[in-house]
Amino acid sequence: MTATAVPLTNNQNGEGASVVSSPEETRPARPAGSSVDVRALLERGRTLCTPVLREAIGRLAPPMDRVSAYHFGWTDAEGRPTEGDGGKAVRPALALLSAQAAGVPAEIGIPGGVAVELVHNFSLLHDDLMDGDEQRRHRATVWTVFGPAQAILVGDAMFALANEVLLEAADKGGATGVDAGRAVQRLTLATRKLIDGQAQDLSFEHRDRVSVEECLEMEGNKTGALLAASASVGAVLAGIDDAGADALERYGYHLGLAFQAVDDLLGIWGATEVTGKPNFGDLRQRKKSLPVSAALAEGGKASVRLAELLADPQGRGDEDEEQLAVRAALIEEAGGRAWTAEEARRQHRTALAALDEVPMSAIVREQFAALAEFVVVRER
Amino acid sequence: MTATAVPLTNNQNGEGASVVSSPEETRPARPAGSSVDVRALLERGRTLCTPVLREAIGRLAPPMDRVSAYHFGWTDAEGRPTEGDGGKAVRPALALLSAQAAGVPAEIGIPGGVAVELVHNFSLLHDDLMDGDEQRRHRATVWTVFGPAQAILVGDAMFALANEVLLEAADKGGATGVDAGRAVQRLTLATRKLIDGQAQDLSFEHRDRVSVEECLEMEGNKTGALLAASASVGAVLAGIDDAGADALERYGYHLGLAFQAVDDLLGIWGATEVTGKPNFGDLRQRKKSLPVSAALAEGGKASVRLAELLADPQGRGDEDEEQLAVRAALIEEAGGRAWTAEEARRQHRTALAALDEVPMSAIVREQFAALAEFVVVRER
Repeated sequence: MTATAVPLTNNQNGEGASVVSSPEETRPARPAGSSVDVRALLERGRTLCTPVLREAIGRLAPPMDRVSAYHFGWTDAEGRPTEGDGGKAVRPALALLSAQAAGVPAEIGIPGGVAVELVHNFSLLHDDLMDGDEQRRHRATVWTVFGPAQAILVGDAMFALANEVLLEAADKGGATGVDAGRAVQRLTLATRKLIDGQAQDLSFEHRDRVSVEECLEMEGNKTGALLAASASVGAVLAGIDDAGADALERYGYHLGLAFQAVDDLLGIWGATEVTGKPNFGDLRQRKKSLPVSAALAEGGKASVRLAELLADPQGRGDEDEEQLAVRAALIEEAGGRAWTAEEARRQHRTALAALDEVPMSAIVREQFAALAEFVVVRER
Repeated sequence: MTATAVPLTNNQNGEGASVVSSPEETRPARPAGSSVDVRALLERGRTLCTPVLREAIGRLAPPMDRVSAYHFGWTDAEGRPTEGDGGKAVRPALALLSAQAAGVPAEIGIPGGVAVELVHNFSLLHDDLMDGDEQRRHRATVWTVFGPAQAILVGDAMFALANEVLLEAADKGGATGVDAGRAVQRLTLATRKLIDGQAQDLSFEHRDRVSVEECLEMEGNKTGALLAASASVGAVLAGIDDAGADALERYGYHLGLAFQAVDDLLGIWGATEVTGKPNFGDLRQRKKSLPVSAALAEGGKASVRLAELLADPQGRGDEDEEQLAVRAALIEEAGGRAWTAEEARRQHRTALAALDEVPMSAIVREQFAALAEFVVVRER
């Protein structure tokens, strides 16, 4: 698979070069000017966390253990081992790094990495069912293979396991009881935001328009909150003070918003694998994304025309390529594409600035920055 | 509504009188020989915990707050306040009492009472959806009124809120950070058992028979584990040692099993409100309950005949009253009814014995005993 340029090339002031990649280059494992090997960081997260994750999943009553193994890509639907990639595993990598930010070995962050991965996958299992999504990571989703009840039940079990694993960190001597409790408290608040975000996302489906502020709040809840917990949980287990934990959370939160802004651009102008043309996928699904909200807020001629098209009940959900291309052009004309690209750069800068508030080694800081660039510079 | 005798009257050795009530009497607020006013204990649980519960629910993003208020019976489907009874609220009452068992005021147990009530209702929301149940407490279930997505989402939110409320006990000075973490850890393990129990219950639907041991394990998970957490959470917040917490958990766990045994008897031989005749409801649903499992394990002539009838695919789910009455009679002949009644008494005695392992005031012990009797002696 070739990497696709993040469509931020209508950047007029030359800022935010770090989130712009040329169409020719593949995703950079070592960003220009950095000696960090991001793939090795991600690989470390997987290598250290996956055995603990598998042990935790092994505690679930059948068939929940088997359903989980399928979901994580460890087995196929019949339970035979597969060579699944299990996703990028950015969250565990952040959790391990955050332990190092607090001056302790990465291993102290392992229960945190496993916990955030469990919460992430709990939300995927439930969201896929609520949204009726039939595919995830090019495989059939759990609810389509094992039924809705298993998707609900296994999601619930993963949520509980997340807290179980974190609290065991205290029993096993990796953290004090107080710090394990603090970690659960922060993860719980992040999970509540995740749930709030999904509630907001569902409620947006029934509306014609959503303000930029509402869209940012929803995306911060759905994506920012758990990345915030990921980037701080290892440090919290290591006893970092609340100010330090808050700063690491801000890094993760704004990183999530930068990721989401890029995702929203790719959702409209990202190229399809087959045709290489813009996919317009989010427009087809009438998703209330940042480019749309920003374009509707602009108020000029193109903005008003876009609002008329979106409010028209005729042919809803049945738009052809040409009609979708017209909408994409109106969004661009109303400045929705440029605003969202600039927003991605702003959020990326804010994330990096938060790192400066926490005393940590230069190497760890550089690794956090490299992971941020990896997350923001995206394949389709 | 008149109270119905718990059908334990085929008690041959005169033991376990406390779980036998005559058909004439209503549910005793003050069991014979006890000066405890159980209704006042339950009322105290509701009075102290409901405001905190309502405040917590108020934190949820719309429409989850409104959906929750409907579920708890505080409002109707349109959001208008109603005079709902909100259930018996045994769990909050136990949580407050458990704080007193550790020698602190009942109020220290409030976050615990709210947390167990939230976990209980999280499981009701999800189980009703998984089981396709359309009625709960004589009202339409949340998934039928607001849709499956809201039932999933609001359940998730309540689960998260439970931990949030418990951990706030430390912030507000009602517990140390370590004790709040211990309380979350015990509640998390109980919740995992609850989920395991639902997984087992679902898997039993695909089987013709289930052993008595499997049935007891499932019921212990589904009902015992959360009553165990309820009966100990206040004491854990108050800093009771692990041995004391374990003993209080045993009281709650075996109380749950006693409750469930009685429930299984009522599920077959409990009278319907309309006809006053046995309802056979669990037989109609082919539920794998204790009387059935015990009868199938007995192995005599009636037991074998029962197994044949249950294994017969003909007319499955379509049995008439007469066929159900034949099955009920076979279960009774094979000793399933008597065994389950005796099991209820055994579990009740085991629950009371666990109380002796914890030093507590005579009054608190008597209140625990009275609540146990209230839970086991049941209306239909």
